[in-house]
Amino acid sequence: MTETFTHPQIQDGWFREKPVLWPGQAMCLEIDEILHHEKSLYQDVLLFKSKTYGNVLALDGVIQCTERDEYSYQEMITHVPMMCHPNPQKVLVIGGGDGGVLREVVKHESVEEVTLCDIDEAVIRASKKHLPGMAIGFDNPKVKVHIGDGFPFLEDKANCYDVIITDSSDPVGPAESLFQYKYYELMKNALRPGGVVAAQGECQWLHLKLIAEVRTFCRQLYPVVEYAYTTIPTYPSGQIGILVCSTDPSRNLKKPIRKWSEDKEEKLFKYYNSEIHEAAFILPQFTKSALKEAENK
Amino acid sequence: MTETFTHPQIQDGWFREKPVLWPGQAMCLEIDEILHHEKSLYQDVLLFKSKTYGNVLALDGVIQCTERDEYSYQEMITHVPMMCHPNPQKVLVIGGGDGGVLREVVKHESVEEVTLCDIDEAVIRASKKHLPGMAIGFDNPKVKVHIGDGFPFLEDKANCYDVIITDSSDPVGPAESLFQYKYYELMKNALRPGGVVAAQGECQWLHLKLIAEVRTFCRQLYPVVEYAYTTIPTYPSGQIGILVCSTDPSRNLKKPIRKWSEDKEEKLFKYYNSEIHEAAFILPQFTKSALKEAENK
Repeated sequence: MTETFTHPQIQDGWFREKPVLWPGQAMCLEIDEILHHEKSLYQDVLLFKSKTYGNVLALDGVIQCTERDEYSYQEMITHVPMMCHPNPQKVLVIGGGDGGVLREVVKHESVEEVTLCDIDEAVIRASKKHLPGMAIGFDNPKVKVHIGDGFPFLEDKANCYDVIITDSSDPVGPAESLFQYKYYELMKNALRPGGVVAAQGECQWLHLKLIAEVRTFCRQLYPVVEYAYTTIPTYPSGQIGILVCSTDPSRNLKKPIRKWSEDKEEKLFKYYNSEIHEAAFILPQFTKSALKEAENK
Repeated sequence: MTETFTHPQIQDGWFREKPVLWPGQAMCLEIDEILHHEKSLYQDVLLFKSKTYGNVLALDGVIQCTERDEYSYQEMITHVPMMCHPNPQKVLVIGGGDGGVLREVVKHESVEEVTLCDIDEAVIRASKKHLPGMAIGFDNPKVKVHIGDGFPFLEDKANCYDVIITDSSDPVGPAESLFQYKYYELMKNALRPGGVVAAQGECQWLHLKLIAEVRTFCRQLYPVVEYAYTTIPTYPSGQIGILVCSTDPSRNLKKPIRKWSEDKEEKLFKYYNSEIHEAAFILPQFTKSALKEAENK
């Protein structure tokens, strides 16, 4: 017998976000079928087949990825930091239980080992079943998986990783601690010399104050701290930020330091290329002014 | 007695888009109050006060502008073409009945006269009442207003304008003819030597095929044709394209040819600056590949 799922945010054939962090606006997606719903130890895990965005993962009622547009986020949060490291061999992914970032990391031949640490095995399990295009990342023999909280995982790591990517949900619920000073300090300690970290950095249209705050404390830890963004239709307001930091004061994160040919870029990527790497750091005037003001405080 | 308005797309305190051109997805905004609703000669005109986006104009059930994010579109569709002209004196705006593009055009001191031609007086009238921050554009003495269809308006114009900006809704309803070859031919004929046109160019995440088609026929008319985009939360998928063309084969539209100081940029703009002008033309790999493929057909 097939299990029949229901969800309080699905009515009349439409899923509707119930946002806490962006009041007054909500994205709706028309659905074909609910694929999976459970309350895991940490969050509400929902997967549904949408009419026009493929299969969709929502955690605590917020869209995390859809098959139609996931690549812009996965590619940008991965290749921006990876292309700013001359030779990334050991990589850590915190969060990212859908596997999409893993899929991107292993495109870099220099990588010897990539560890994924996600708090919620339910996300990994459901993604393997319903998001195969992302979960394919788990199949690579270079991948190791650790189920647990990223925060304590990092506590006994020192001088371990070339690149750390934090692919987290928003700072309410299980990901809250990942937006704090202490977390960025742990990441710094876990980096090998010349290391780079990148983290989901929230949206400039919605959370400019939070972005400025996180950037400010990061500047106490890292000599180079930059904010970039990528467009993605199903994230709130259609885009998401990426905070990128390096312990090497001479590193210019706004330019890739390695280069693929145009042909190779066309084969490997749907969103990333070396030009959009640079463009992602160029900010609208309101963000530029707000970050400048926060710096001068 | 105060008139009480209702609208079929407003229920339980939320406005919900009813999209024809982007099936399966819908943006919702929470509302405080319906300010105005009428069936004009051409379209359904709705203005409401939202909880978090200020006052909002929707035409035929599609959000056209909100007070919170309108500037990114108005600034980019105006200053990208204006900053690619060395000395824009005579400017034409087709559509743009909210007045926002006019407000931006007159920031350029070289402008002697700017004509706005909008088909629907109801949009202008309602904007003057409920969108004063945009409709302020109508107050400038350099502004002339013509109520009528942009298509026949252009038919007897030759060698008249330095810059033509088409600030239209989507290609269903009254704006349909503005996405056709004949319209771009009329604009070309109405330009003075070295002129530039810019038009609402639809979203690469939703209408890449239409974008490639329009760009292809434009290349038969104009030696320089480029696609740029700006981010804007309340447009479908969070961004909108701008098609920019010039009759001068030596013109590089991707770089502003005039320059304001950083201080002046900070005073004049909330979104535009000379760097984001250039970044707006840098396209994600999927768009870059699709446009290249269309070129080689």
